[in-house]
Amino acid sequence: MGRTSDAKERILTAAHPLLERRGYSALGVAEICTAAGVPKGSFYYFFASKEALALAVIDEHWATEKREWDRILGSDAEPLERLRRLFEATEAGQRAGQKSCGSISGCLFGNLSLEMGNQTEAMRERLQEIFEARTETVARVITEAQERGEAAVPDARAAAQSVVAQLEGQVLFAKLYNDTAPLGTLWVNCLALLGAKAPVHA
Amino acid sequence: MGRTSDAKERILTAAHPLLERRGYSALGVAEICTAAGVPKGSFYYFFASKEALALAVIDEHWATEKREWDRILGSDAEPLERLRRLFEATEAGQRAGQKSCGSISGCLFGNLSLEMGNQTEAMRERLQEIFEARTETVARVITEAQERGEAAVPDARAAAQSVVAQLEGQVLFAKLYNDTAPLGTLWVNCLALLGAKAPVHA
Repeated sequence: MGRTSDAKERILTAAHPLLERRGYSALGVAEICTAAGVPKGSFYYFFASKEALALAVIDEHWATEKREWDRILGSDAEPLERLRRLFEATEAGQRAGQKSCGSISGCLFGNLSLEMGNQTEAMRERLQEIFEARTETVARVITEAQERGEAAVPDARAAAQSVVAQLEGQVLFAKLYNDTAPLGTLWVNCLALLGAKAPVHA
Repeated sequence: MGRTSDAKERILTAAHPLLERRGYSALGVAEICTAAGVPKGSFYYFFASKEALALAVIDEHWATEKREWDRILGSDAEPLERLRRLFEATEAGQRAGQKSCGSISGCLFGNLSLEMGNQTEAMRERLQEIFEARTETVARVITEAQERGEAAVPDARAAAQSVVAQLEGQVLFAKLYNDTAPLGTLWVNCLALLGAKAPVHA
């Protein structure tokens, strides 16, 4: 099938779930090519290396997730309610993944941060930017909640990082136990971390 | 050097930091043998597979960490103060690791949970047992705090899991940024998650 116009897209599409489920080091270019149905030469025509492909998968996944986070956290619902919806969407996403492949794959960015965080500088930088952007998006919502007197934290950015840390930690438990139940605690824990009460409308 | 009496110990000692820094899949038996200074035949005399070695490293690391957690969390200090000391020890441990190898390796159990959690059943089970034991140990301290009216949570076990999740999430940030600063938030976040106030003596 060679360097057809959709070969690059097919490689990305095949690599994404493999990277999410099996991690970076366990994955070989040959396996990705087989899954994508493209010859190895075609792979190296589009990607300089396995790392370059992984970075492209990370970018594509982040573009999708960013749209989702922006949609939920930028909506006109009340600030804390938007955070609740983010956790609900996270839980639904992990449940859908579990249904389609039998086990919870967790968060691609969290997985790669712990597997590769101190191994390749390019991947570390990209993952740092993504966690930075996630934290900033959550921090903006916390600032709005602060302005309405609904969150009692001295530093919105630090609080946002703690909310994201709690999310990553509970996703770790969800993956380890192959059970989405730990994600059900995100909302009350977020309220606790923000010194907040559940909004009346939630 | 062959199957000398200390070859097994040398393999375990060499494999531990490699597994912690580079993960499971990226690591080859040949590399471990070179680092340990033992021939490959010797490796397979002591370990049936790379997985068997990884499980032995996990067990050894957990035996050490369990002693540390039991010492800190089983001391006669006030319950919340014991939790504070656990976070302090976690931060000190990551800082020492950073000093000795240049980058923060994170938590071996968290790393392997996200890299291997849904790949080998034996490793998943072992990691589940460890996180179960960690959660139980923290839950006992929270129960004591509850009995003294110092923690306001409906379920000590769920609260303990959230405290451990927060710890794992902040260790992820510490590894990603190669900076122990995120671990400095563990104590106030723990208090928030437990609906607790800082003890007078802390």
